[in-house]
Order: sequence, then structure tokens, then C-alpha cells
Amino acid sequence: MKKIGIGLIGFGTVGAGVARMLIERKNLLAERAGFIPELVSVCDNDLKRPRPVSLPAGILTPDIKKVLENPRVKIVVEMVGGIEPAGSFLLKALKNGKSVVTANKALLAEKGDYLFSTAEKSGCHVGFEASVGGAIPIIKTLRESFISNYITSLYGILNGTTNFILTRMIEDRLSLTKALKSAQDAGFAEKNPSLDLSGTDSSHKLSVLATLVTGKFFPASRIPTEGISGIAAEDLEYAEELGYGVKLLSILKLRQNGVILATYPALIPNQHILTSVRGVYNAIFLTGDLVGESMLFGKGAGMDPTASSVIGDIISIGKNILCGAQPLPFSMGPDKKLQLLSDFESRYYFRFSALDQPGVLARIAEILGKHNISIASCIQKEEKPKKAVPVVVLTHKAKESAVKAAISAINRLPAIKAETVLLRLAFDE
Amino acid sequence: MKKIGIGLIGFGTVGAGVARMLIERKNLLAERAGFIPELVSVCDNDLKRPRPVSLPAGILTPDIKKVLENPRVKIVVEMVGGIEPAGSFLLKALKNGKSVVTANKALLAEKGDYLFSTAEKSGCHVGFEASVGGAIPIIKTLRESFISNYITSLYGILNGTTNFILTRMIEDRLSLTKALKSAQDAGFAEKNPSLDLSGTDSSHKLSVLATLVTGKFFPASRIPTEGISGIAAEDLEYAEELGYGVKLLSILKLRQNGVILATYPALIPNQHILTSVRGVYNAIFLTGDLVGESMLFGKGAGMDPTASSVIGDIISIGKNILCGAQPLPFSMGPDKKLQLLSDFESRYYFRFSALDQPGVLARIAEILGKHNISIASCIQKEEKPKKAVPVVVLTHKAKESAVKAAISAINRLPAIKAETVLLRLAFDE
Repeated sequence: MKKIGIGLIGFGTVGAGVARMLIERKNLLAERAGFIPELVSVCDNDLKRPRPVSLPAGILTPDIKKVLENPRVKIVVEMVGGIEPAGSFLLKALKNGKSVVTANKALLAEKGDYLFSTAEKSGCHVGFEASVGGAIPIIKTLRESFISNYITSLYGILNGTTNFILTRMIEDRLSLTKALKSAQDAGFAEKNPSLDLSGTDSSHKLSVLATLVTGKFFPASRIPTEGISGIAAEDLEYAEELGYGVKLLSILKLRQNGVILATYPALIPNQHILTSVRGVYNAIFLTGDLVGESMLFGKGAGMDPTASSVIGDIISIGKNILCGAQPLPFSMGPDKKLQLLSDFESRYYFRFSALDQPGVLARIAEILGKHNISIASCIQKEEKPKKAVPVVVLTHKAKESAVKAAISAINRLPAIKAETVLLRLAFDE
Repeated sequence: MKKIGIGLIGFGTVGAGVARMLIERKNLLAERAGFIPELVSVCDNDLKRPRPVSLPAGILTPDIKKVLENPRVKIVVEMVGGIEPAGSFLLKALKNGKSVVTANKALLAEKGDYLFSTAEKSGCHVGFEASVGGAIPIIKTLRESFISNYITSLYGILNGTTNFILTRMIEDRLSLTKALKSAQDAGFAEKNPSLDLSGTDSSHKLSVLATLVTGKFFPASRIPTEGISGIAAEDLEYAEELGYGVKLLSILKLRQNGVILATYPALIPNQHILTSVRGVYNAIFLTGDLVGESMLFGKGAGMDPTASSVIGDIISIGKNILCGAQPLPFSMGPDKKLQLLSDFESRYYFRFSALDQPGVLARIAEILGKHNISIASCIQKEEKPKKAVPVVVLTHKAKESAVKAAISAINRLPAIKAETVLLRLAFDE
């Protein structure tokens, strides 16, 4: 049976998971794939740390050249993370004619275009299934199964940490702080959770999907991104009362004149299947013009789910190398002229902190009306004269630009005592 | 650019959808795939019926040899359906060295083993993505993305017609008869709906998945199958009251000593994501030892969703033919010795139609107890002396064989006035 040499850079948690499966499931993989993906070199600075797999003698090395310049290595698996030196390793591998597999969404969201044009020039394959949605086969589905489709919209729950936090906040009535603490205790959130909470990690993944779907490279820095830090438990409770769940959504919508991309927490009707995606799970709900509405759901992170996707890529690429197949395209577009639309329409949820005085609601309604924003429903429960009370408003469809102007004006009213909370609705347009 | 000749047998609804996409999206597919999938021959008895696509002159023929013996045809797409003559066409194509693509679950569930062994001998590829779950990429996901996993269980909503009917029954409080009528009016059910209602169509698809997952061929005729005909609207309402949705589930569970396969209507906890799969949608929820819990959701039938999967297969196989890649295996097993387990444990829902007389419930409870079946909860609402009233019981875990014996004994009680309704619980074990 033929062999394909695999070089692994980064022998941390996920890297060790990949190495372990390549070694422990060697026979299974060979039987299913028709060739042997053979681990020939593993590079890491730390040679001593205990890992859940024992490598064959002589494979582990601190010398990156033993991977990047090893003629037996045909596929380089990068499990280092971060922009540098991971980016240089991958470029070097591609320039040396080696195909690559990576889970590095931050890198793809910043340098994806350069990486892919380098791969194209050298005729090498790039596998990045594990960069979005962990175990979820979204990349293969878009590149292969749905190859005849135009994807018209995509809504992703792409960050398990924030989905876990939002789930605990509403199901266990926890504050954001306590829910974050419980996520950290469960190993679902980092000590410094800002990349997750800010929505940045989600937008990294959306960047990868957007480039794949549209054919134009949209770095994450260009994607409007809001995280969940501004959300209070009461917002989730009001949303529930109104018939909605709240999820951190990464959104892609193709329009005649461009594409809308954004990451923000959104209200989703209870009946919608994305509302049922709870806990650390991820999901991508998309519409293709032939397939209609589809969803892929699964674990978005973790050693084994990520290793599963990495190995799926290794096997697919290995087969392609053995038979000399063309690399799959990074983008299904390619529409290089596509504009990013900064303004769009949506329905909105506002929570105003307003003094309970006569005329305050009228003043708010007046400003909204002036900006062509009409109110669909309103909750104002407590009555505490002289104290700020929450006034919750759901609007009909309105322009993002008009909403921002209106909220800015409302926030300047003397009766408004705190920054207004603004959330958008999804699937209710 | 290279070309791969496609021959199409069956120019009905789905066949026309496939032809249309191959013609209208020729450039798109070529750009994305790197080769041209060229429709060179279409065979159908009916040459006159209007279709939503106009074929190039001279392509449509009533002569099957123009497909099966055409040297330009490399991939034969079978869109005829049914066992014969579809089966003979496919075998002939394979023996002539042509790869095949089919959506024919009935055929695969009856002759899949013979078809695949023929393909193996001739070195040809078999694409059957569209045979299960319409647009849902479950076959590619199992064969490629999850290649490193052992699949331990799988729960599928594999029939859109019955899912539509069950959804309308509970959401619009319709009887089975009226819900079926509305499905027929909406074009979601055939005039003769028995293949769907009886669960047979679902078991055909489960057979395909079971063979793929386990490596042993399990024809649909061996799979215990119950449909939805015995379910009344009140059962769905009782289930809802108890916190469950009801779905027609096709189930695969691997055990130490064998595999459990079955299709039956099951109670699923409201919080489970499968309960949110409403209307004509299909979904496959599965557990792999690395990926954990995953779900794929989408349209299970229809011209465009089916055509999308067929074209995905055509492109994948075309690429493999061009570069001479090995065909993918039909099964990920192969565990030829795997036993089908006829007995298994589950929790149960019973609805007894019992005379409201003193001692009846005690008698029922006594018989259940004798068979080691313990009651978890019970609903008995109405009180109409001398008339049969519904008594609803949820049990703790019990053996299928014991339950069947107990129900048979209970059905013989003079106070029991109608066949007891028996449903199983899923995900609550």
C-alpha cells in the first residue's frame, strides 16, 4: 500500500490529538482511505511535556527544517496557531511543494489570500476544514457537495464559548460574569476570553466562509463585529418573553449590489432551528439556491473533534496527491468586484434605561419616528418614579444607519440614564 | 479543459433537474470543478412531455444502449427509480466500466451489496448521496469528513412526508387523515402514501446508512419497521404535555454484541435539537467517537435539492475518473459478522383505552410489574364511567421483548377496549 508522509508542526493539545489518531488508527485509516498517512516528523519546542500519545523514536524534533525540508513529508499539518511564525511555516511549506492542513482561522482571516495564491502557484492543496466549526464538515460541503449551488445567505453560531455562556445565562438565569466563570471552570473559555466575547473569533471564521462563498477575500478586520459583553441576563429574558432566543450570529447575505457581512448577537424566533443550538455547540445554517435551507451542527472545538476534521483533510489531500488531482479552489466565486455593504435593513431590539417620567416614551417614539423606525411591540413593566426603568422596544424593519443615528440622539436625552442596548433580529424580516 | 461524458437514464422530474443544471450551469461547474461534465445522452420512453430544460438536438433517445454502450459516457446517472429495470441498467453500466450515480434507495436497500461488489470488480465509482436525505451531504460526510471516526449511533428523520404530517398534527391540531390530505395538497405526499406512512421509505434509507456505517449489508426487509398510521393527534398532545415531540425515527445503535436497527415513531425530549426539525425537512443526528454529537439538516426531497446532490456526486466521481483515483468504499466497516439485535432496551409510552372501572389501572400495573416494567409517570384525565378512557403511561427502561409480552397480555383484558398504542422514547435513556 502506498504511503503519504505527514509532517506535524505544533505538538500541543490538538497536534497531539492528530498524531495520536494517525498512529493508533493507522490500520483503520489505511483500510478506509486506500493508502497509509504516515507521520514522519513532529516539530515542537517542548520535547518533554507528557502527551496522550507516544511517538516512534526519532520523530519529535525542535528543528522546523525536519518538517519543512523533509523530502518524505508531502503534507504539512500546522497546529501552532496565531499569525507568526505559523504563517511563515505554511508559506515555506507551500513554496517547497508541500500541501498543508491548518485549523488557523486567525491566519486565514488575515493572510488567506496570500496563502492561497501561493498554494495555487505551487500546485499544492490547502485543507482548512478545522478552521471553522471544529468537527462540522462545512468547508467540504461548500466546496464539494453543494458545488452546483449559489449560496445566498449563511448564519453561523461559530463560537462555542459564547454560545455556552448565552445558554447558561438564559437557562440557569446567570449573569454574564457568572456564566463566563462557569465556562472557564468547564474548560470552555480561556483565562483571557476577549477573543471569544468580542466576536473576533467568530469573525475570523466568517472571513474564511465569506471568502469561500463569494470568491473575494474579506479579512476579519473589515467585518463589522459586536460581541456579547453588552448583553445582560435581562435582555435574554425579555427576548424569551417576546418569543426569541439570543445567539451570537455571524451573518453573510448576498444582495444584488454586494454582500452584507457581520457578527453580532441576534434575536432568533424560538421556532427556528438555530435557537435549539445550545451549549458549546456550533452550527451553520445556510441557504443555497438548489439545496434550500440546510444546517450543519456539531462541536466547534476540542482535541478530538478538531483532529477528526484535520484527518479528514489529510486523507482527502493525500488521495489527491497520489492521483495527481487538481487542488480544490479556495473560493467558489470568484467575484473580485463584490462590495461589502455597510448599510442594511433589519428589525431591532432596543432596551432603553429611561426615567419613568411622563413624556419619555413619547420623546423616544418621536425620535424613532423621525428616523423612519416604527415600533412593533414594547415592554415596560416596572414603575419606579424617579428611577431609570428598562423600556424594551422591538421595531419593524429599519435601516442600520437610521437606527444608529436615532439611538445616538436618544442616548443624549436627559431622561436616558445608560447606553441603550441594541440587538438585531434574524429570520424575522 | 477536459470533459467527462454523462449519460442520463430517466428524464422525469429529478432527471430533468439534473439535466438542466448540467446545461445551464456548465460554465459555473467547469470553473469550480476544473473539468466539464458534459451531458451526452439522455434516455427516456417519453420523448414528448414538456420539461423545464431544452436538450441539445439528438441527445434524447428511447434507446438505452445509447447510454449504456456509448463510449463517450463515463458516468451513468440513473433517475428511473424502483428495482427493475433500474437495477439491470446500473449493473450493465458497471459491467461496461462506467461509474454510476443513483438516488435509488429502494434498489440500494435490496441489492446494494451486489451492486457494490460489481462496482468493486470493475473498478468503478458509485455515487448515492441523493439516496438518503436529499440535499443533505450525509454520505460524503460519513465516507470522507468523518473517516477517522467510529460511528456509535445514528438517529435519522429520513422521510419528509411523515415529518410534515406529524408537524401539522401537533402544530395545527389536525387528525392524521387531515394532515395527510394537506401534505398531498402541498405536493409533499403521493396519492398512495403507504411507502412513506408505513416507514418503509425510511427503512430503505436506514439500510443504506447502516451498510455504510457497519460494513455489513442489512437489507430493509430485515429492519423492524413501524410507521405513523397508528398514531392519533391525542398521542402527540400527551407527548407534548409530558415534554416530548414525536418524530418518525430511523435508528442505528452499535452495541458490544451487535447492532440495533429500527424505524419507529419516537418521543424525543423537547430540548433535543431533533425535536426542532419541523415540516418536510430531514435530519441525521449521529455520534462519532471523535466528532461527538453532530447533525446534518436539510431538504429530503424535491427536484433541485436532489439534483444538487446528484451533481455533487458527478463532480466528485468525474474528478476521480480523470486522475484515476480509487473508488471510495461503500462501507466503512467492514464487519461482516455483525449481528442484528432483535431485542433492546428503551423507555416506552403506552396509551391504553381502558374502561374507567375500579381496579383496571391496578391490573395494568400488575401485568407491567410482572414483566419488570416500571411506571415513570401516568396521565388519566377524563372520568367517564362505563366508557373507555385513555390512560397514558411512560415507563422506565424496559426490554422490548418484555414490553411486547406485557402489552399482549394487557390487550386481552376485558376492560381494554382498543389496541394499546405503543411508542418508544429516544435520547432519554
